Amino acid sequence: MSVKSYQRKLDLENGRVDLSHGSGGRAMAQLISGLFHQAFGNEWLARCNDQSAFDVAAGRMVMTTDGYVVSPLFFPGGNIGSLAVHGTINDVAMSGARPLYLSASFIIEEGLPFSDLKAIADSMGAAARSAGVYIIAGDTKVVERGKADGLFISTTGIGIVADGLDLSADKAMVGDRVLVSGSLGDHGVAVMSKRQNVAFQTEVVSDSAALHKLVAVMVAAGGSGIRVMRDPTRGGLAATLNEIAHQSELGFRLQEASIPVKPAVAATCELLGLDPIHVANEGKLVAIVAPDFADAVLAAMKAHPLGSDAADIGEAVADNRKFVQMATSFGGRRIVDWLWGEQLPRIC
Amino acid sequence: MSVKSYQRKLDLENGRVDLSHGSGGRAMAQLISGLFHQAFGNEWLARCNDQSAFDVAAGRMVMTTDGYVVSPLFFPGGNIGSLAVHGTINDVAMSGARPLYLSASFIIEEGLPFSDLKAIADSMGAAARSAGVYIIAGDTKVVERGKADGLFISTTGIGIVADGLDLSADKAMVGDRVLVSGSLGDHGVAVMSKRQNVAFQTEVVSDSAALHKLVAVMVAAGGSGIRVMRDPTRGGLAATLNEIAHQSELGFRLQEASIPVKPAVAATCELLGLDPIHVANEGKLVAIVAPDFADAVLAAMKAHPLGSDAADIGEAVADNRKFVQMATSFGGRRIVDWLWGEQLPRIC
Repeated sequence: MSVKSYQRKLDLENGRVDLSHGSGGRAMAQLISGLFHQAFGNEWLARCNDQSAFDVAAGRMVMTTDGYVVSPLFFPGGNIGSLAVHGTINDVAMSGARPLYLSASFIIEEGLPFSDLKAIADSMGAAARSAGVYIIAGDTKVVERGKADGLFISTTGIGIVADGLDLSADKAMVGDRVLVSGSLGDHGVAVMSKRQNVAFQTEVVSDSAALHKLVAVMVAAGGSGIRVMRDPTRGGLAATLNEIAHQSELGFRLQEASIPVKPAVAATCELLGLDPIHVANEGKLVAIVAPDFADAVLAAMKAHPLGSDAADIGEAVADNRKFVQMATSFGGRRIVDWLWGEQLPRIC
Repeated sequence: MSVKSYQRKLDLENGRVDLSHGSGGRAMAQLISGLFHQAFGNEWLARCNDQSAFDVAAGRMVMTTDGYVVSPLFFPGGNIGSLAVHGTINDVAMSGARPLYLSASFIIEEGLPFSDLKAIADSMGAAARSAGVYIIAGDTKVVERGKADGLFISTTGIGIVADGLDLSADKAMVGDRVLVSGSLGDHGVAVMSKRQNVAFQTEVVSDSAALHKLVAVMVAAGGSGIRVMRDPTRGGLAATLNEIAHQSELGFRLQEASIPVKPAVAATCELLGLDPIHVANEGKLVAIVAPDFADAVLAAMKAHPLGSDAADIGEAVADNRKFVQMATSFGGRRIVDWLWGEQLPRIC
C-alpha cells in the first residue's frame, strides 16, 4: 500500500485539528499518515490495518492500561505523550516484565494546534524508540470544542514476564525491606509549578522516565526475593504503601529521614501545602524486598542511572490495622494516611 | 487481599462522580471495587495490581485499540460501554483472531451520575462475558466539569490468530468477491435518531454486536480464501472499501441493488440527507474473498444469526485510479467517494 497516496499537505505550523480529522474520512487518513505515522513509524502501522499482529513465544504476558489527562499538556521534563509512554512501560515493568508493544488512543478537542499534537506524538515516538518498545496500534477521535481539554491519551502496554517471576501486591511479608529508587515528588511538583506559575531559582523537572531497564538489573540481583514493585504515581508513596499494606495484610514502618526528597521539591511542597509522600512520581519505583536480598537489590539500583539516589526507607511489620507509620525526623511517629480525595487533580 | 476493606457505601442511585474518584485515594479505590469490579469481576482484577498476567502459547497475536466518544452515551440497542467492548472485539476478530483479553480506560467528567456509570459498566461486563473475553486491566481518570463530555472510554484488545491466517487490507486481488454480513447503516442511524429526536413508527436499533463467532465460521468455511475482513465503522462501507482499494491498489464495482439496507434506515437516511453506505455500522463486516471460496463463505455467514442477511455485493476490479464504483438501482453508475470530512460526528 502507499501511505503517500493519502497525503495532502498538513499545515503543521499553523493548522488545528477539526472534527473532520476524527471522521474516518480522508482528513483522518491524512492526519494519521502525515503526523502519527511520521512520529511512530514502524512496520506495523505502515500496514494500516485495524489491528497489528506479532509473534510470541509461549510464556506469561502482562497487560496494563492508563488514561492521561495531565494539565497542562507540556510541563518541565516532558509532556502528556512522553508521560503516557513512560507510565505504561512502567506499569508493565512493575510486574518484572519486559515491555514489548503499546497502543495509543487519542481523544482530541477540536482546535488543538497541529504543532502541539506533533510535538506530543514526536516525543511519544522518541520515548518508545529509546525504550525499545513499539507503538503498534492507535486510534484518533475528535470531539467538539469545549467537550474535552486539548488532548487525552489512553495507552495500553503488553510485555512478557521472565520465567519464575510472580510479583503481586499481596506478596509482601513481615520483615521485608521497603526500597525506593530515588527522590519523591518531582513529577507532581513540576506539573503544579507549571500550572500555578510558581517559579523558584531551581526549576523542578518531572522525573518521567521508563524504568524497565532499572527493573531488569534489580531482577537480576534479587530474583524472586523481590515480592512487590509499584510505581508511586497518583497518591504518591503514601497511597502505594497503603494499597500494598491492605493487599498483603500487614503494616509498614518508614524512616522519614531516609526518604529522599530534593530541596526544591521540599520547598515547593511547603509553599503549596503538600507532603512529598502524597505527590505523584513518574520515574520512581517502590520495591518490597525480602531482607536477605535487600542489600543486593539496593546496590544494583544505586549502580543504575535511574536508581542512583535509591534508599532503604523502612520495613514491613505485622499490623492487623494495616497502618503505614513513619518515624519523623523530629523523633516522633505519625500515621501516613491514605487520602480520601484529590490533592492534585490531573497530575497524570 | 480484601476488596471489602476498601468499601464504603457508594450511593449508586443518587450519587455522582467527583474529582476525588480519580485521585488515587480511597474514593477511587471505592469506585473501583464497588462499581467496576462488581461489573467486570474476574480473578485478574481481584488481585488489584497495576497490570494483569496471563499465559500464552507460542503463536501470532494481534493488538488493537479504539477510543469511544459516542454522544449520547445511551442509544437504542446499546450504550458507550457495550459499544466499546463489541468494537474492540471486532477489530481483533477482523484479523481472524480469537479475542482473549480487553483493557478499558475511563475518562469521566465530574458530575456523571453513578447510575449511568454503573449501567455502562454492567453492560460492558455483560458484553464481555457473552463474548467469552475478560476485561483484565482498567484505569479511571476524572476531569473537571466542562472538560470532557460525560464519559470517554478507550478499550484495547488482544487475541490469538489461528495458524496460517494472515488477513490484511493490502491482500485483495482482482476478481475477489465483496461480501457484507447484513444491513448497513443501523448503528449510525440509531445514534442520530436518538440525538436528533427523530422518531419513526419503526425504531432503528444499533447493530452493535461481537462478530468473532461469525468470523470463526467464516474462517472454517473459507480459510485463506478470505483475503481481507473489516468492520465498516466510521465512514461506513464507502470508507472501508476505499481504504482497501488504496491499500490493495485496485478498484471495486458494487451493485447497489444487492446492498442490504433496512427500510427504516433508508427512510431516516433520506430524511437526514445521509447515504447508508457512508454511515457507521458496529455489528457488520465486509469480507473480500477469493472467488472460488465466496459461495461457501457466504453460505456460512447466512447460516449464522449475525449473518442471516449477508450478501455478495460486488467484486474487486483492476483500476489504477483505485475507484469504488457502484451500479445504481436505476441503471446508472456512480463513484462511491471517500468523504473528506465529518458526516456524523461522535457516532462511536
